[in-house]
Amino acid sequence: METINDLVGYKNLKIFQNDDWFKFSLESVLLPNFASVNKSTKKILDLCTGNAPIPLILSTKTNASIIGIEYQEDIFNLAEKTIKINNLENQITLINDDLKNLKKYYKSDTFDLITVNPPYYKNQKLSTKNPDSHKAIARHEIATNLEEIVKVSRYLLKNGGRIAMIHKTERFIEVINCLQENNLSPKRIKFIYPKEGKESNLFMVESIKNGKSEVIIECPLFVHNNDGTYQNEIQKIFQIS
Amino acid sequence: METINDLVGYKNLKIFQNDDWFKFSLESVLLPNFASVNKSTKKILDLCTGNAPIPLILSTKTNASIIGIEYQEDIFNLAEKTIKINNLENQITLINDDLKNLKKYYKSDTFDLITVNPPYYKNQKLSTKNPDSHKAIARHEIATNLEEIVKVSRYLLKNGGRIAMIHKTERFIEVINCLQENNLSPKRIKFIYPKEGKESNLFMVESIKNGKSEVIIECPLFVHNNDGTYQNEIQKIFQIS
Repeated sequence: METINDLVGYKNLKIFQNDDWFKFSLESVLLPNFASVNKSTKKILDLCTGNAPIPLILSTKTNASIIGIEYQEDIFNLAEKTIKINNLENQITLINDDLKNLKKYYKSDTFDLITVNPPYYKNQKLSTKNPDSHKAIARHEIATNLEEIVKVSRYLLKNGGRIAMIHKTERFIEVINCLQENNLSPKRIKFIYPKEGKESNLFMVESIKNGKSEVIIECPLFVHNNDGTYQNEIQKIFQIS
Repeated sequence: METINDLVGYKNLKIFQNDDWFKFSLESVLLPNFASVNKSTKKILDLCTGNAPIPLILSTKTNASIIGIEYQEDIFNLAEKTIKINNLENQITLINDDLKNLKKYYKSDTFDLITVNPPYYKNQKLSTKNPDSHKAIARHEIATNLEEIVKVSRYLLKNGGRIAMIHKTERFIEVINCLQENNLSPKRIKFIYPKEGKESNLFMVESIKNGKSEVIIECPLFVHNNDGTYQNEIQKIFQIS
């Protein structure tokens, strides 16, 4: 069912969703809060943008021009409605296409920042895919995959530009290797833990195109307290008072 | 000055130290508590063993035969005295040699586990080395370096054997790359933070020879509370009551 919701913690923003497909997730809120945005950030690209939560949140932090690309037409349509109801058409532009085709839209060395919350799971024949194709494409590497995302990003980023990605920790080594193979040197990594005492399930990494290979491992992020409530850092991000 | 001390938290163990050179560190206690030791662990090698704190602590966890190698003769002599006063000559054997020469002592595929707390800093001409050569060799890559340590380890480890290393987080990417290039796939990583809210300064990694590239990022370890006291996990390791 299609609904319109407040973007939690961002009181003036509303987001169109469809419960049958998927709703925006914690990851969509964490990543734009992790990515480095400053005054020299003029052009941002959000890959696999879905119903555009990341461009939406980035718009509260920067005046940069933000492009979002979404492969699935139904979800792209939700994103378009979301941008309109928030009156953000001047700042956010959406593209409904395969990210493989981005080279037709933009020259190399165009973007200061790329953000991406990609499909997490490999498209292996044995993996249990979600029977709903919208969810399957968002979660599994069906329409795109890690290597393709990283190669397109390398092409489109300016020299010294940054890519911020969130991914499953079980694929950490593979992600780090893929970024390095494409001259996108990891600079900042933040591990996310469901709660204290547990292994990490997610991580965020920001790489610099043609940067040096020195990395900062930022303080860890715990999502929940032991009593199930959100930890302080998450509450701050969601602006829960 | 040469002194004999209780090995903190290990009430029956004593360790010879020399304050003018260096004393055993928190790292020497964390690493043997991180490394995977089980009933099938029969032969362990500790590289850069110093005054042998790691073999000493490992001896409380396993009946495996433990070899320690130390390049500096003065420090090797302290380690020998330490092993004797603890009556561990039957379990721990020390070698005073350059680890490059280990191939003369052991065939390939000999060890189940290698532990190493290596020199942390590159031997760059501009780096400020400790004027005391004992400390300089322990801290800087003068007598050995990361690549040499990893290559020797790869040679000496059994197929499926493990290497557990502690290192500075600023060299994290380099360490991970070096291990992978030598078919020592990282399996478990634990980041250490001086306290909550700070970046990681140290990490421990355990790799498996010819293993798969899936990694677990274990729950983080904070050394101090905000009031300067040791955190619970550290207190447990030191058995402070």
